[in-house]
Amino acid sequence: MTPQDLATACADRLYATDTASRALGITITAVGPGTATARMTVTAAMLNGHAIGHGGYVFLLADTAFAFACNTYDRVTVAAGADVTFLEPARAGDELTATAVERTRRARSGLYDVTVRRTDGTILAEFRGRSRSLDTPILSP
Amino acid sequence: MTPQDLATACADRLYATDTASRALGITITAVGPGTATARMTVTAAMLNGHAIGHGGYVFLLADTAFAFACNTYDRVTVAAGADVTFLEPARAGDELTATAVERTRRARSGLYDVTVRRTDGTILAEFRGRSRSLDTPILSP
Amino acid sequence: MTPQDLATACADRLYATDTASRALGITITAVGPGTATARMTVTAAMLNGHAIGHGGYVFLLADTAFAFACNTYDRVTVAAGADVTFLEPARAGDELTATAVERTRRARSGLYDVTVRRTDGTILAEFRGRSRSLDTPILSP
Amino acid sequence: MTPQDLATACADRLYATDTASRALGITITAVGPGTATARMTVTAAMLNGHAIGHGGYVFLLADTAFAFACNTYDRVTVAAGADVTFLEPARAGDELTATAVERTRRARSGLYDVTVRRTDGTILAEFRGRSRSLDTPILSP
Repeated sequence: MTPQDLATACADRLYATDTASRALGITITAVGPGTATARMTVTAAMLNGHAIGHGGYVFLLADTAFAFACNTYDRVTVAAGADVTFLEPARAGDELTATAVERTRRARSGLYDVTVRRTDGTILAEFRGRSRSLDTPILSP
Repeated sequence: MTPQDLATACADRLYATDTASRALGITITAVGPGTATARMTVTAAMLNGHAIGHGGYVFLLADTAFAFACNTYDRVTVAAGADVTFLEPARAGDELTATAVERTRRARSGLYDVTVRRTDGTILAEFRGRSRSLDTPILSP
Repeated sequence: MTPQDLATACADRLYATDTASRALGITITAVGPGTATARMTVTAAMLNGHAIGHGGYVFLLADTAFAFACNTYDRVTVAAGADVTFLEPARAGDELTATAVERTRRARSGLYDVTVRRTDGTILAEFRGRSRSLDTPILSP
Repeated sequence: MTPQDLATACADRLYATDTASRALGITITAVGPGTATARMTVTAAMLNGHAIGHGGYVFLLADTAFAFACNTYDRVTVAAGADVTFLEPARAGDELTATAVERTRRARSGLYDVTVRRTDGTILAEFRGRSRSLDTPILSP
């Protein structure tokens, strides 16, 4: 299998059982070795007390792109942590795209940068995720 | 109004319109000047492709406790960013408690530490949020 | 050896060869299991182009307190990363105290909060360090 | 003045009075609008109790590149905070290069990514700095 085929197979396997992302209508529009793009539309159910998108949902979308990007090598990889900077609030109806790119990977640890944009290109958030790989493969032997 | 009464009034006002938190069954079980406690039960709809709670929901709960804690001074305050460390995965059925405590506040900027625990006391995540206050009051004059 | 004696022995061992901290006049004024306090006076040689203390030196002091705090269990422990928030600039002559407290420790990973204060109590920076322990003991058998 | 000339003029002005960076032998080898490269050789005086380069100095080098990168628009800009991930330890004699690139800038806030490499290309640290601009110009009118 080519690295791209492996990345696609891992993403398909994870997405099939990713209840959380699917329940929110998140779709994975692109995936490759160490990269992934996730999309989500902000609904009225995602607004907080300030009538803007709850930052938790913006983080969740970025975290999903991050998770799919770091799980493209057929090794179960989990999030050890992340830092996020919120630049602009999300509004109901916004269609958000989170693009995750691998910055560095060494032994079991990885660092991934995720940018969350609105369709007009405005950046809503910059996220950096820290990943940790386990020995478990994602695809069955 | 005492600082405690003000904190309670701000929390009531925000919670009344916090569609996101309410839709997830998040409740604010305590609030005070610079502090807040939020609770949420992990549902099957919050599980990811690894069959554990999506980190985004653990962050969202912590972010909610943070938001209520930094909005206790009758000044609309938003999240500028946050760092989270994931220590243990959440499982379906877990009842999570996020306790937010103000670490420091200076001019418009604040720093809040949030710990997310399971009912058995196990710490699932440690979160540190960076807040930014606006001039807008939360309560109408 | 009591945990306190072990912490003291580890700190003495590390400090004896900590050229960097010693060269800057950093002293470890207190240490205990998972905690440490470090002091440093800001010199003219630590000022940057804005005529304030170079943030790197404020970080370095916090990082030193963090290092001594997470190396109190006789296991060589290194910094995996850290997040710092700068609240007030340091000035030449300021005597800074960095107090590190363990927030959580699990398997090989630890989280330590460090606050850097001026002698008048003003907080200059809040630091959170992420540690990783190796199998190597600090003290010889 | 072109943006590049402005960046160069700001860097020259800051470096002339940056006692901290100069005292450590840090040189600014390149600068442009929102970018800067800083170099430093790790000396024996920078080693910690584990006989590796004190992470504080690796951070300080990254922080210097960050400071020069965000001060290229003739507005005094300070560090509000930063997150660093340490990947490999520095050794005595290592010549380190920190390359700072602007990720985003909005109103008074900016986000800069800094990578610290050894001359053999090995990445020692990944740093992300958060900047805050003041109204003060760097160059005299």
